Amino acid sequence: MSKLLVVIGTGLLGGSFARGAREQGLFTHIVGIEPDAERAELARSLGIVDELATSVIASADAVLIASPSDTIAEWVIRLSEHRGVLFDVGSVKSAILDEIRGELGELPVRFVPCHPIAGSERHGPAAADGSLFRDQKVVITPHADIDSSALARVESWWQQLGARVLRTEASTHDRVLALTSHLPHLVAFAYLQQIDTQHLDFTGGGFRDFTRIGASDAKVWSAIFELNKSPILEALDDLQRSLGEIRDALDAGDMDRIRRIILSAQQRRREL
Amino acid sequence: MSKLLVVIGTGLLGGSFARGAREQGLFTHIVGIEPDAERAELARSLGIVDELATSVIASADAVLIASPSDTIAEWVIRLSEHRGVLFDVGSVKSAILDEIRGELGELPVRFVPCHPIAGSERHGPAAADGSLFRDQKVVITPHADIDSSALARVESWWQQLGARVLRTEASTHDRVLALTSHLPHLVAFAYLQQIDTQHLDFTGGGFRDFTRIGASDAKVWSAIFELNKSPILEALDDLQRSLGEIRDALDAGDMDRIRRIILSAQQRRREL
Repeated sequence: MSKLLVVIGTGLLGGSFARGAREQGLFTHIVGIEPDAERAELARSLGIVDELATSVIASADAVLIASPSDTIAEWVIRLSEHRGVLFDVGSVKSAILDEIRGELGELPVRFVPCHPIAGSERHGPAAADGSLFRDQKVVITPHADIDSSALARVESWWQQLGARVLRTEASTHDRVLALTSHLPHLVAFAYLQQIDTQHLDFTGGGFRDFTRIGASDAKVWSAIFELNKSPILEALDDLQRSLGEIRDALDAGDMDRIRRIILSAQQRRREL
Repeated sequence: MSKLLVVIGTGLLGGSFARGAREQGLFTHIVGIEPDAERAELARSLGIVDELATSVIASADAVLIASPSDTIAEWVIRLSEHRGVLFDVGSVKSAILDEIRGELGELPVRFVPCHPIAGSERHGPAAADGSLFRDQKVVITPHADIDSSALARVESWWQQLGARVLRTEASTHDRVLALTSHLPHLVAFAYLQQIDTQHLDFTGGGFRDFTRIGASDAKVWSAIFELNKSPILEALDDLQRSLGEIRDALDAGDMDRIRRIILSAQQRRREL
């Protein structure tokens, strides 16, 4: 029985899922939709997709929406009547779901919202790797009316690619990702404003690790910041408060307090 | 001609220099001074040092002071009349030099202040590795009256261990290290105050990289913060200002401004 997957957006995530799906025999035919002509051609010539298209064929068994976060809602709305399983890889959840509900009044029952917490500094089809999701986590934020068979199938695909699947509320996802991912990116971007070439002679591994995420794509990240604005601002306020505490302790020469704060941080980090 | 090195503090840095020095044939005999009995015995049994002592023999050709940053000045003062070359690996410079000048009125001419920007999450003699400094940078902050032969020898030793040596003013070192190393540690410590075990299910590589330095030793880092307080507070103020800018832009929905800040960060990071 042939299984047809359409991948919208043949970048790192879409391309990696396509590769992994092919390697695991999850689909027999993969079609790519990609507005960037160069990226599309690369995906085709690399064999990530079997052919290219400009619209989603009605007989597709599954449609992966791996386009930029701020285009996902639009695609789900357009495909709301599609009979296959729809799933995405957007970095934010509530904003996307709210936009869909705003337009349709409800969420399509076969739409399974996903977010793989996996990535790479690299981008585009050339970086696509079927093992990208192995031993990584994929968060799924199912809504109340979700079709349980669609949910089960999507979970199973991610698991077959080696990922661990967690289910949670969309609002929980957004709040926690604001803290664990979006805020660190924001801080790295702010921090790097101070850095000049003259400083680079004095940097070591700690600097490189701390700022690695500062090389992230501007378009992708400004979209994420805009879509997850409230949780991010809350997380930032909490951080500003902690920075203020350390600042005050340091200013006052209260080294016991500083030591306690550091020990507390050390403990949490080592639990990882 | 026998060459005797005394290493005060047989931890990661002292132990690694000792191992590297032995591998490169820089010294024929290495004596360790280490107040922690377990650490001392480990350094001896691992062959990092040939023997242990509790004071510095007058005939030592070189003395490496690799004890905690807040004990270095004390050792230099105690050894101010020593006829060998003294050098340290302290993470801060001005505070140490000021303390020595405060006591002696001037800096010993054969004291060469060093700071290797190299490290490892691991600690202690067991982590000592002669190649730790290979392709790393060592900053030396020579004072006006420094003995040029002592300076040349110390630089040569680091270079023979594979490091690149940079000379700069102590105040420049402290200001730049506050920015490139101390502040990131402070931020990681503050950030981790928000993190709970419940969040760990939602973390990926970006979080791990950003917080890696958060596992650093509390005693070591509270000493560094105390010794380099002013430059660190200045760097923190600059960061708070940049965070405020991003916060305002995000709050106002000014995505063009956000994008420009991110692009600027991306560019600086990629220059690395």
